[in-house]
Amino acid sequence: MAIKDELIDLAKKAQGASRLAYGISSALKNKALREMACRLISAQEAILTANQKDLRRAQAGGKSSAFTDRLALSPERIRQMSDGLLEVAKLPDPVGEKLKCYSRPNGLKIEKVRVPIGVIAIIYESRPNVTADCIGLCFKSGNSVILRGGSEALQSNLAIFKVIKEVIKKMNLPEGLVNIVTAADRKAIDILLKLNDYIDLVMPRGGEGLIRHVVKASRIPVIKHYLGICHVYVDSKADLNMAQRICFNAKVQRPGTCNAMECMLVHQDAAARFLPGMIKEFSGAGVEIRGCPLTQKIAGRIHKSLVPKGRVKKAAERDYRSEYLDLILSVKVVPDLAEAIRHINYYGSHHSDSIVTNSSQNAAEFLKGVDSACVYVNASTRFTDGNQFGMGAEIGISTDKLHARGPVALEELTTYKYLIRGNGQVRQ
Amino acid sequence: MAIKDELIDLAKKAQGASRLAYGISSALKNKALREMACRLISAQEAILTANQKDLRRAQAGGKSSAFTDRLALSPERIRQMSDGLLEVAKLPDPVGEKLKCYSRPNGLKIEKVRVPIGVIAIIYESRPNVTADCIGLCFKSGNSVILRGGSEALQSNLAIFKVIKEVIKKMNLPEGLVNIVTAADRKAIDILLKLNDYIDLVMPRGGEGLIRHVVKASRIPVIKHYLGICHVYVDSKADLNMAQRICFNAKVQRPGTCNAMECMLVHQDAAARFLPGMIKEFSGAGVEIRGCPLTQKIAGRIHKSLVPKGRVKKAAERDYRSEYLDLILSVKVVPDLAEAIRHINYYGSHHSDSIVTNSSQNAAEFLKGVDSACVYVNASTRFTDGNQFGMGAEIGISTDKLHARGPVALEELTTYKYLIRGNGQVRQ
Repeated sequence: MAIKDELIDLAKKAQGASRLAYGISSALKNKALREMACRLISAQEAILTANQKDLRRAQAGGKSSAFTDRLALSPERIRQMSDGLLEVAKLPDPVGEKLKCYSRPNGLKIEKVRVPIGVIAIIYESRPNVTADCIGLCFKSGNSVILRGGSEALQSNLAIFKVIKEVIKKMNLPEGLVNIVTAADRKAIDILLKLNDYIDLVMPRGGEGLIRHVVKASRIPVIKHYLGICHVYVDSKADLNMAQRICFNAKVQRPGTCNAMECMLVHQDAAARFLPGMIKEFSGAGVEIRGCPLTQKIAGRIHKSLVPKGRVKKAAERDYRSEYLDLILSVKVVPDLAEAIRHINYYGSHHSDSIVTNSSQNAAEFLKGVDSACVYVNASTRFTDGNQFGMGAEIGISTDKLHARGPVALEELTTYKYLIRGNGQVRQ
Repeated sequence: MAIKDELIDLAKKAQGASRLAYGISSALKNKALREMACRLISAQEAILTANQKDLRRAQAGGKSSAFTDRLALSPERIRQMSDGLLEVAKLPDPVGEKLKCYSRPNGLKIEKVRVPIGVIAIIYESRPNVTADCIGLCFKSGNSVILRGGSEALQSNLAIFKVIKEVIKKMNLPEGLVNIVTAADRKAIDILLKLNDYIDLVMPRGGEGLIRHVVKASRIPVIKHYLGICHVYVDSKADLNMAQRICFNAKVQRPGTCNAMECMLVHQDAAARFLPGMIKEFSGAGVEIRGCPLTQKIAGRIHKSLVPKGRVKKAAERDYRSEYLDLILSVKVVPDLAEAIRHINYYGSHHSDSIVTNSSQNAAEFLKGVDSACVYVNASTRFTDGNQFGMGAEIGISTDKLHARGPVALEELTTYKYLIRGNGQVRQ
């Protein structure tokens, strides 16, 4: 009960501050962001000391090295957080943008303008840099933010938060704009997710388990950065050299990201020409293949010195639903474009999918048929990223269809309202 | 369990059809809508007969006359449904509209295009016309629709649905585009609300109880057409004649609508000049006033022949949170503009609120400070309506901030996707 009261109080303050935030000028917001960036650097020692505490606890708790790698901060990582805030300061302010402006026959002037959403809660796991990134984007877009990071990163998050909060206070900005929930109890998340009277949006950032839990428990609208089960489909009319470059890049360049390829689909007419060279290249990069029967058959003909035994396994159905985030790839030969589209819509996660083809008709069919946030022709799926799209920093990639789809950047952190100006109009 | 399997099957078919709907031309959609409109008229007898069954059941069940009025169909009401479909046929097709189009330095061409959302479930109460209205808007915007109307209107809804479904079949359109859930069991709603793998959006249309239930039970994103607790604030710098015309219209012209005024706020400097005449006019129209102490005091000075005893009561705090939908109005005198804004944000439902003032500074402050979908200056709140905004028909007025805010019309029933065209680009 004490936690609940505390959280309601915090959420109310966040809402109160958000109503003032709309009035803060872009210049002042940018000045505050630059100040936050500067203070993070000067507080480096304190942040690293706090991070050491989290790291020692994680190591004592026997966490994996991948886990501690995500958790660990360094002067370089603090510099990146600081640079991130400076970048956000440079981006155009979305608040106040006129989306539409027109007059009605009765003389009413209707304006549709971009405004902040209000209060945004971010629930995330072990990366402490999310603390600074999310504050930067929410603050610039005029929203109050409530952060709830993983308990494993609590000391690091608090140290970063403290530096930023001090800037807010020093500059006489509404204190409720930035908030952190420190209660280690996981029940705090469930309480937070019921506060739909105060919180307008929740964004979970983390693994599948966290996101499923938030969707199930929340009465607040959720934007999900969910699985990235991305495909490249090599069409019968593909430039096979280009296809090989794109597929290799999509899988290997950074396999741990959500926009990396997890499944490669190949038209049956291209399979015999395309797969041997492709599989050899993947094998050379240490990629494990989980293939359909035809893929296995073609791979079986390659000399063992090029593709060691065990490098190509049989794909189970669950492989087609897997986000490996690793040097593993499922491969399937499909009879035609229609089946490729069907496979992607059925097994994929509606994130990013690409076709390699020289046929403009096939490209058009793929663009139309694939129900994903980002659909590519002749390019790697790895470009799905706010920065690559020219939107600056991003808070995640939405795999939802409502409100925001694809990269969630400053614009996506806003809503709109209608301003209607009259001179005494009444309804007939 | 049988209901669950049935609903999953229906939702899967709806999803399958929605993936084909994207490809249906505007011309074909418009032809189908005109055909549906025509068939509703020719099937008038069958629809009225079915409606009679529902009406007899409602009367036998002792339902109120307001209830049977909402339920009752007539040749005139069927004509309105038919006209509604013809109107939707005339509106521009939002699907395929290019929202952005630009190139990146690496040569990638990025297009952001409007696409249908997918599968939309509408859960509604006793008005059978919602059946035709929702099918029209969802069909035109390229979405599959799953309807679940009130069990009291089942025969009427089925009769209307049957006519429309026959047009879909006859024109060889994907049958899964329009669907109706006939299970009377209310558990059907809860099952439906968990099918987030197939349904993309749910819109409840009905009373507060229904909407609260849907928000609580749903794992699917919800757009709420929630309470309309709308305000008119009469500023100290108002043209008081204009204020009286606007307030009277906002309250009396159609009190049962969500955009009618439920609370009138008056600046203390205007109260003594404004309230006597305004209260007399309201009283003459049969409006009951629930006033703050000062309002009561001013009303008490008016002669009983003009304002009968009992017409002005004391406002309790719950009055400020009430959506009367009736000839009842709460009235409060406020010390200043800031307090008016605070009252509206605190007690209102973020729907439609208006200021009457000749001060452009006060107008600007009100437009900025009031956190509602539609904020008016010198006009009646009654204009919040898709048609009045020039958007054609609407499916409701969203009081949410995510995805759609204010009137939900064809554009709001779409999402977007990014189409990215390259010539072999890979990420560095």
